[in-house]
Amino acid sequence: MPDHVYKQIELTGSSKTSIEDAIQTAINKAAKTIHNMRWFVVTEQRGYIDNNAIAYYQVTLKIGFTLDE
Amino acid sequence: MPDHVYKQIELTGSSKTSIEDAIQTAINKAAKTIHNMRWFVVTEQRGYIDNNAIAYYQVTLKIGFTLDE
Amino acid sequence: MPDHVYKQIELTGSSKTSIEDAIQTAINKAAKTIHNMRWFVVTEQRGYIDNNAIAYYQVTLKIGFTLDE
Amino acid sequence: MPDHVYKQIELTGSSKTSIEDAIQTAINKAAKTIHNMRWFVVTEQRGYIDNNAIAYYQVTLKIGFTLDE
Amino acid sequence: MPDHVYKQIELTGSSKTSIEDAIQTAINKAAKTIHNMRWFVVTEQRGYIDNNAIAYYQVTLKIGFTLDE
Amino acid sequence: MPDHVYKQIELTGSSKTSIEDAIQTAINKAAKTIHNMRWFVVTEQRGYIDNNAIAYYQVTLKIGFTLDE
Amino acid sequence: MPDHVYKQIELTGSSKTSIEDAIQTAINKAAKTIHNMRWFVVTEQRGYIDNNAIAYYQVTLKIGFTLDE
Amino acid sequence: MPDHVYKQIELTGSSKTSIEDAIQTAINKAAKTIHNMRWFVVTEQRGYIDNNAIAYYQVTLKIGFTLDE
Amino acid sequence: MPDHVYKQIELTGSSKTSIEDAIQTAINKAAKTIHNMRWFVVTEQRGYIDNNAIAYYQVTLKIGFTLDE
Amino acid sequence: MPDHVYKQIELTGSSKTSIEDAIQTAINKAAKTIHNMRWFVVTEQRGYIDNNAIAYYQVTLKIGFTLDE
Amino acid sequence: MPDHVYKQIELTGSSKTSIEDAIQTAINKAAKTIHNMRWFVVTEQRGYIDNNAIAYYQVTLKIGFTLDE
Amino acid sequence: MPDHVYKQIELTGSSKTSIEDAIQTAINKAAKTIHNMRWFVVTEQRGYIDNNAIAYYQVTLKIGFTLDE
Repeated sequence: MPDHVYKQIELTGSSKTSIEDAIQTAINKAAKTIHNMRWFVVTEQRGYIDNNAIAYYQVTLKIGFTLDE
Repeated sequence: MPDHVYKQIELTGSSKTSIEDAIQTAINKAAKTIHNMRWFVVTEQRGYIDNNAIAYYQVTLKIGFTLDE
Repeated sequence: MPDHVYKQIELTGSSKTSIEDAIQTAINKAAKTIHNMRWFVVTEQRGYIDNNAIAYYQVTLKIGFTLDE
Repeated sequence: MPDHVYKQIELTGSSKTSIEDAIQTAINKAAKTIHNMRWFVVTEQRGYIDNNAIAYYQVTLKIGFTLDE
Repeated sequence: MPDHVYKQIELTGSSKTSIEDAIQTAINKAAKTIHNMRWFVVTEQRGYIDNNAIAYYQVTLKIGFTLDE
Repeated sequence: MPDHVYKQIELTGSSKTSIEDAIQTAINKAAKTIHNMRWFVVTEQRGYIDNNAIAYYQVTLKIGFTLDE
Repeated sequence: MPDHVYKQIELTGSSKTSIEDAIQTAINKAAKTIHNMRWFVVTEQRGYIDNNAIAYYQVTLKIGFTLDE
Repeated sequence: MPDHVYKQIELTGSSKTSIEDAIQTAINKAAKTIHNMRWFVVTEQRGYIDNNAIAYYQVTLKIGFTLDE
Repeated sequence: MPDHVYKQIELTGSSKTSIEDAIQTAINKAAKTIHNMRWFVVTEQRGYIDNNAIAYYQVTLKIGFTLDE
Repeated sequence: MPDHVYKQIELTGSSKTSIEDAIQTAINKAAKTIHNMRWFVVTEQRGYIDNNAIAYYQVTLKIGFTLDE
Repeated sequence: MPDHVYKQIELTGSSKTSIEDAIQTAINKAAKTIHNMRWFVVTEQRGYIDNNAIAYYQVTLKIGFTLDE
Repeated sequence: MPDHVYKQIELTGSSKTSIEDAIQTAINKAAKTIHNMRWFVVTEQRGYIDNNAIAYYQVTLKIGFTLDE
């Protein structure tokens, strides 16, 4: 661990079902191009309202991953 | 969208089951007097503890709605 | 209530299933030594990622309890 | 309490005598149109200076009240 | 001034031309129902991008107005 | 002073009379178990409203005390 | 007012009696060299504890004054 | 919209003429490598001073764009 | 540059026309007594409203200048 | 790790030599009563000045440790 | 300088020896893929504790670099 | 101490060697015109990068000094 350098990127994932699922949605998309994701921290929780109901959640998170050879 | 003006109000909703349900509870109450709600952003997540268990969640959110004719 | 003095402590609970469960995990541990817990406020929501999936949530919360005789 | 939805409004009250009195002044004014006020939280403490003395305090607070039938 | 109580509301105005114009747009809309507006403070400056150009600015502001007879 | 290590705890004291008295109430309670308290810093000022009047103030403060032999 | 330019300085005043008095103490000291003070905003409220009692309050404030001919 | 994942990047654009132009300058540069930019939020407004005049503005913004196939 | 020490002062400038002009107004006033101003950062954007229109902008900025011989 | 609950405490350590040493000083003191310390995060860096030189650094940090059997 | 656009990335570097060395470690890693790095700003200072000693520092920083041809 | 009024000024010092040295550099410069400096608090830690190495640190600090006769 002391030799690792982490990079953080900031993504916003969406979900119609839950805050947790919106986080996983963002991680799924990031996984297509990033390896070695280690942790996330939530920076904002929003959502859209349609016809007086939560249409979907929008969760912004920073994802940390290792920059290693 | 560029012609819209949004007003934001701040509400706190409660729920015994989940954070998501507490958000919907606040929206349900607001729907009795406000139309055209579009989005929300969570500003605080609290809860009450009774007998060492989460009695209910209290989620504060800002709700944005259009001020249109 | 006006006679109460509250102390706040800051804990981090973990859970493989949900943010709500991570909060309850922290309260369960605190209950072994603290009585009269009344409320909590979430101060950080993090998590660990393993193999592109959320391995577990880590939720930090302040817990308030009464300092009474 | 778990069934309540709270709305928060933000007011600024003034007083020539004290910070506490400026808070009460804002509550007095709000009481003319709002029922069921439950709590407040101070968000800013300012004041005006005249002739090198505090002319009056200006305290901004959010007031929470229940939206119930 | 020491006798005034101010209420603050939070609005978001839009404009295709400038940040200043988005502020005025929000004030124009508020003026249809609110009298005695005295000041504003900008709390967020956003915008939408379309085809690599700023489509419109979205400026959120708190507007203070007097609650007087 | 350069040899001291301070610990900070966070308490909330209440008072029906003033913000200052709520601070002293928290210190009084802490004094039953803590020695060598040196300073405090206010982190939140709240209060409860009953029948349109301030029922009591709730002031949260961090208290620093020395951890010395 | 639209022609004025204000400068803000940050001072910390002390008092054994109250938060309000600590503010006035800072203004008194500033008045020896600064003219045209117009407003203040409180940025921190601390205090020192001696023998389990509030020895004195320390209130930090920004003071705005006009830079005019 | 609920299927989108957004990535945010943080850029600083400069302009000799206005804050709005500095924002557009950052978007212009980003457009050379990024598609589907949707929104921005201003996070800092700075500037350089030369010979007592504003030499140029430096506006930092987060730009959100869709990560879609 | 590594030998420079900068001092920052905080000013509020006003303008009837634009945010940018309010910044320049503050710099103009500071230029009467300060040399070697290098940069500014905006810390607050306010304004006064008169008859439902922006009467003037009030922009607070920190100005950095070199303390050199 | 998913089974751990962490508690955070806030300490201030001092040192005449460096910021790093002030952190270690706080950890040394905590080690007399706390086991299983895992991480820290710096929350404030202050210092005292005597005769125009840094007399000692004061670094405040939160220390996280596991609450395990 | 007025023609430059800067991009900021956020990295976390580690070091067993000092905060300064952790910053340099992050820059070293970034240098393998990024040119024209100009400045950094520290956003978080953490560390891991092993056997009551600082095992290594973890410093998070934003690094700004020019996006130029 | 209860009779003292402190003024705070904000300076940025630089150093090629360490964060601690950049703090001392700012204090050295301030000492040419200010007496009775008592404490500082770090508000920002930046630095410049040249050829992939830290060229110099830039540490911004508030310095408090007594305003006494």
